[in-house]
Amino acid sequence: MKAAVVGAGVIGGGWAARFLLHGWNVTVFDPSATARAGLEATLTAARRSLPKLYDRPLPDEGRLITAPDLETAIADADWIQESVSEDLDLKRRVHGAVAKGSRPDVPIASSTSGFRPSVLAADTAHDARLLVCHPFNPVYLLPLVEVVPSERTGPEVLDRAMSLLEALGMKPVHIRREIDAHVADRLMEAMWREALWLVRDGIATTEEIDTVIRCGFGPRWAQMGLFETYRIAGGEGGMKHFLTQFGPALKWPWSRLTDVPELTGELIEEIARQSDAQAQGASIRELERHRDDNLVAMFRALKTRNQGVGEVLNAAEARLRRRD
Amino acid sequence: MKAAVVGAGVIGGGWAARFLLHGWNVTVFDPSATARAGLEATLTAARRSLPKLYDRPLPDEGRLITAPDLETAIADADWIQESVSEDLDLKRRVHGAVAKGSRPDVPIASSTSGFRPSVLAADTAHDARLLVCHPFNPVYLLPLVEVVPSERTGPEVLDRAMSLLEALGMKPVHIRREIDAHVADRLMEAMWREALWLVRDGIATTEEIDTVIRCGFGPRWAQMGLFETYRIAGGEGGMKHFLTQFGPALKWPWSRLTDVPELTGELIEEIARQSDAQAQGASIRELERHRDDNLVAMFRALKTRNQGVGEVLNAAEARLRRRD
Repeated sequence: MKAAVVGAGVIGGGWAARFLLHGWNVTVFDPSATARAGLEATLTAARRSLPKLYDRPLPDEGRLITAPDLETAIADADWIQESVSEDLDLKRRVHGAVAKGSRPDVPIASSTSGFRPSVLAADTAHDARLLVCHPFNPVYLLPLVEVVPSERTGPEVLDRAMSLLEALGMKPVHIRREIDAHVADRLMEAMWREALWLVRDGIATTEEIDTVIRCGFGPRWAQMGLFETYRIAGGEGGMKHFLTQFGPALKWPWSRLTDVPELTGELIEEIARQSDAQAQGASIRELERHRDDNLVAMFRALKTRNQGVGEVLNAAEARLRRRD
Repeated sequence: MKAAVVGAGVIGGGWAARFLLHGWNVTVFDPSATARAGLEATLTAARRSLPKLYDRPLPDEGRLITAPDLETAIADADWIQESVSEDLDLKRRVHGAVAKGSRPDVPIASSTSGFRPSVLAADTAHDARLLVCHPFNPVYLLPLVEVVPSERTGPEVLDRAMSLLEALGMKPVHIRREIDAHVADRLMEAMWREALWLVRDGIATTEEIDTVIRCGFGPRWAQMGLFETYRIAGGEGGMKHFLTQFGPALKWPWSRLTDVPELTGELIEEIARQSDAQAQGASIRELERHRDDNLVAMFRALKTRNQGVGEVLNAAEARLRRRD
């Protein structure tokens, strides 16, 4: 099987790594001069971390081919994953070319974090095989993929996506109605906006906010999510009791909902300064390595418990075992 | 040393457990008929989980005394922790009585998640020794405490709080300016409001949202927080590049910021129904046990890595070692 990866930044490179480490051949197209070096770094990181999640060996690594142009990259692909920049005009141009140059039965997935699938399509024929498959950085470790069909996506394309992503050890979640930014980025954006206010208003620094998340609600959410955590908070009365008890807070000034912070040059400088101080000189590569090692350690712990990500990993490992 | 715990629901009970397991004597006052049973259950859970975080024994457990009235509970306490319901009138009444009945040098901490410390005080003398120490459920496992003084809180009271909380193995974060709901609950509330919209509009179920968090951004935040994760997302350009790249999203309809969902009876029923389905018959106690075991497993993994919560735990363990 061969995947075409169009756009090989952090996300496209992560896709390439996941496909390759699960035995797929991959052709990559990215016109940027730095793409190849970035891709190699991502591959190195993936080879270092992903195999640690399993007690079974992964399949033999597939072959990586760098294509000189888009047409060559997609010509004989069985799956096309578009991960170019979050720029609607660019994405539409790319999807126009992809629709023309690929076999008419091949699914075309976009990694877009923000756009609805229906706005990406070039024409009606293209529509039927296009859907959003939005992964999360680092793509080679985090299993989530938001799978968002438009009303015109063929049901067989959706089925194909769901089973393919599972075969890559991922957790596809089918989002039934398309909406700007799908689910995860809407949730993150809501919190991000509030976090920007807190920094702008001098309530907390970037480091203090990160500490609050790491030592407080972050570990709750990582293993149970939002609703199941609150179900417990409701005590024996469960979710209904929780909603009744905490409902009034929706009317309280507990977030700056009615307003969006303006990213002035000053605010950007201040946040960058605080973030630099917080990193204590660690390079991005070093931070990435820390993150990956932390994720592997947490994921192994949750795998033993068969909870959250651990359940996904155990299912993936069972598939590796059947393959042996 | 003796702590008075006023109000022994989920939060007050968690405080009692943390104090007791760190060798403090605790007097508890809670007029509710079910408080004692709840407290025993919380203590059982804490005894089961908290010691697993350390490779050193905790101090001998302190003595738990149930006081017949508020005055007896606080009379000779060295620390008073108020955790009554989130009802401003009730909290003010309790703080009035606590201010009168306690030694004038004893710090009085409120567990309030929403109120600013300056609105809780009964009078000026009380003001100086009152501050917010807002913990997170389960209090016996999660280290975070938001420490929020008002402008009138004495600096020695703040110092006392910070060192006391560290001695309890916790991570106090000093919030420099008081604001409704402090930091964590503002962040959580922003996301919660967006999550309610997603359920109400039929975009995703409670279970799908939880899966998105568990398998996607939850594990990123649990070990690095928000800003450090985004610093990595900016690649070699770091935070400044990230802000410039994703700044435009602040203008996009990526969350329902300008509006707050109404918790109709219908929406409450729908969420409760979805949450019931998701729990698959697990009782709240069973879910609590799952949560605690997951947290212990993740925390042990992060302790090996000395990252996030792991750093806090290693510092606490070093203190236990010095004590031996």
